[in-house]
Amino acid sequence: MTSSTLDQIRAASPLVHCITNYVTVNDVANVLLAIGARPIMADDPEEVEEITALCAGLCLNIGTLNARTIPSMLSAGKRARALGHPVVLDPVGAGASRLRTETALRILHEVRPTVIRGNISEIRTLAVGSGTTQGVDADAADAVTEENLAATADFLRAFAARAEAIVVVTGAIDIMTDGVTVYTVRNGRPEMGLVTGTGCQLSALLAAALAVEPLGLLAAVAETVALMDVAGEIAWAQMGERDGNATYRTCIIDSIYRMTAEELAARMNITKL
Amino acid sequence: MTSSTLDQIRAASPLVHCITNYVTVNDVANVLLAIGARPIMADDPEEVEEITALCAGLCLNIGTLNARTIPSMLSAGKRARALGHPVVLDPVGAGASRLRTETALRILHEVRPTVIRGNISEIRTLAVGSGTTQGVDADAADAVTEENLAATADFLRAFAARAEAIVVVTGAIDIMTDGVTVYTVRNGRPEMGLVTGTGCQLSALLAAALAVEPLGLLAAVAETVALMDVAGEIAWAQMGERDGNATYRTCIIDSIYRMTAEELAARMNITKL
Amino acid sequence: MTSSTLDQIRAASPLVHCITNYVTVNDVANVLLAIGARPIMADDPEEVEEITALCAGLCLNIGTLNARTIPSMLSAGKRARALGHPVVLDPVGAGASRLRTETALRILHEVRPTVIRGNISEIRTLAVGSGTTQGVDADAADAVTEENLAATADFLRAFAARAEAIVVVTGAIDIMTDGVTVYTVRNGRPEMGLVTGTGCQLSALLAAALAVEPLGLLAAVAETVALMDVAGEIAWAQMGERDGNATYRTCIIDSIYRMTAEELAARMNITKL
Repeated sequence: MTSSTLDQIRAASPLVHCITNYVTVNDVANVLLAIGARPIMADDPEEVEEITALCAGLCLNIGTLNARTIPSMLSAGKRARALGHPVVLDPVGAGASRLRTETALRILHEVRPTVIRGNISEIRTLAVGSGTTQGVDADAADAVTEENLAATADFLRAFAARAEAIVVVTGAIDIMTDGVTVYTVRNGRPEMGLVTGTGCQLSALLAAALAVEPLGLLAAVAETVALMDVAGEIAWAQMGERDGNATYRTCIIDSIYRMTAEELAARMNITKL
Repeated sequence: MTSSTLDQIRAASPLVHCITNYVTVNDVANVLLAIGARPIMADDPEEVEEITALCAGLCLNIGTLNARTIPSMLSAGKRARALGHPVVLDPVGAGASRLRTETALRILHEVRPTVIRGNISEIRTLAVGSGTTQGVDADAADAVTEENLAATADFLRAFAARAEAIVVVTGAIDIMTDGVTVYTVRNGRPEMGLVTGTGCQLSALLAAALAVEPLGLLAAVAETVALMDVAGEIAWAQMGERDGNATYRTCIIDSIYRMTAEELAARMNITKL
Repeated sequence: MTSSTLDQIRAASPLVHCITNYVTVNDVANVLLAIGARPIMADDPEEVEEITALCAGLCLNIGTLNARTIPSMLSAGKRARALGHPVVLDPVGAGASRLRTETALRILHEVRPTVIRGNISEIRTLAVGSGTTQGVDADAADAVTEENLAATADFLRAFAARAEAIVVVTGAIDIMTDGVTVYTVRNGRPEMGLVTGTGCQLSALLAAALAVEPLGLLAAVAETVALMDVAGEIAWAQMGERDGNATYRTCIIDSIYRMTAEELAARMNITKL
């Protein structure tokens, strides 16, 4: 696999519309700038269709969804799909409340996103149509391991085929499928989970990657997942003994800003299952 | 006093629900991760009762309150109390507008929070039932000093007894009481006031601390106040000559991530009045 | 030109009310603290008039405007003007949606802001009364260059005279006018555009500067524009080879925190056209 998505993003500088949570929105904007894309955040129902029409991709993140932004996500999503733009759904906390589960399912069915990225508990909730998630982190019982990898791959392949979407589950082992092919990515650091929003950042980067890969290739998704993980590895290697998760947060974005396609290609560990 | 709360938080990793302002929410999430807790932000009336039921503690921060989130704070707060969960109220800017004063008083009376943490002007406003605050900082005229410490302690003790809450006032000298016992903490740096949200961060950490201290012990509160202050001291000592408040912001959270119970015990300056 | 605004802000420590977007709000608060001012963010219609009355300046930024905050901007703006407080309008993305263009024009006509600061595409949209902007960045076709500088100055001078406001366009060359005099600032770094919110930060700093310059002097505006740019230069000079836009974000705010009037005076490149 060649590492070409990164260079394509930098060449095209796609405008990415984000309707995203207010917890991690600043990092989402800066990571899009770091990779060479351009962010625009807009969430009012009065303007989201116009804004998304200007853009090349859309990221819908339900992390702090509310009564005003849910209709915005649905109408922006439908408009983007009608225009042939890629749409990424990040179902943050699906399973933790009825509102989150129902909203994620509505986006799934009414928008039909190009990519769905979440932790295993969120994705299980969407695949099964209900679920109980403990907050915004995956349940330990759900974790993807070498032992249950094949079974998880089958489960996700079936869900992706049914959803007609690329499904991406991130965790200790990342796994992604378009309903036919399955890739795993074995990169990253467990400490990335101690920085709020690394998942949100990846979802936005996927929207940028798909914006320059009009066919929505699974390869571009795998490469972007690997890029985020490799940034986490590079950043962790630079941490001093007094540095903590706040410095790590900064270094991860910096590492994406400085990443070259060669560096990524040399470090990424993508396997076809 | 032993420094045990920190290790208990790390062992239990409590999920903390925050309905908090959008100015400092990212730092609040990262400081909870730094101490070993897990944050979840959710503020829509449709889901806050469900979300708070999953959690072990709740932090209500009125820093950017609005017509949609005020009912969320009240219903989440009541549900959390009904479940026996600790609730921290951070009455940001109480006294600066009628909306803030009235909302803080409603939360005080209808939710009956476990802990109320603010600057002296905010706490005076709540205790007296009205007030005029200049923005979100304490008025210089209100400052707690060695000279007025005993009188302030009496005032706060009476308010805490009436509110049946632990009341925490942070400033140059921090003072906290459960209506009977009064502790002071003499740690921290004045420059912490030049980083937006160090108070918001402390309020969220208090929710995490109380979540693992089911009796709501004043000692756990004092230790957590000291922990935030000691992190400010350690971080300040690392500042280079070109570093400013933005680097300080990062270093404070890093210092909490790296803090050990021994380090905290060696530096914390807690006195029973 | 002497560099006096910075010292005046530090001496007066003005309280600045911001109704601003949730993407960059934390940086806006920290940059106000870095320069010596005090931020307060409040956006609910029920409280914004009271809050702005406590303050010495107001910054209205439409970056994530919505149905609830648009009336807040109008009523806070009118109240601030009635009290003689300076009001800065940052028309983020004017031209990118009808809602943004119309809201910016309503603020322009109903509030009559003291200063309007944007990129050239946003300002053209306001001056012409309609426009098409590609997102929140200036269109390349609109860029201010040495070749079109005189024509741009004439255009802006006419708009500023009509709006009875100081108009500030930031870009590779910054240009500002009160409808009579025109200044340019040639400082800064192109990489500042890769940190989300440097424009938002400048707009808030302008509100702080005008709060201590009751005459709304164009000189104070020019100096503050130069200050932001010089901070970008100083911060860039400190960047290591692995640092990226996230570290740069931190260093820019730090550089404002550490800036002295002498340092600024020595580096700022302000020209009267």
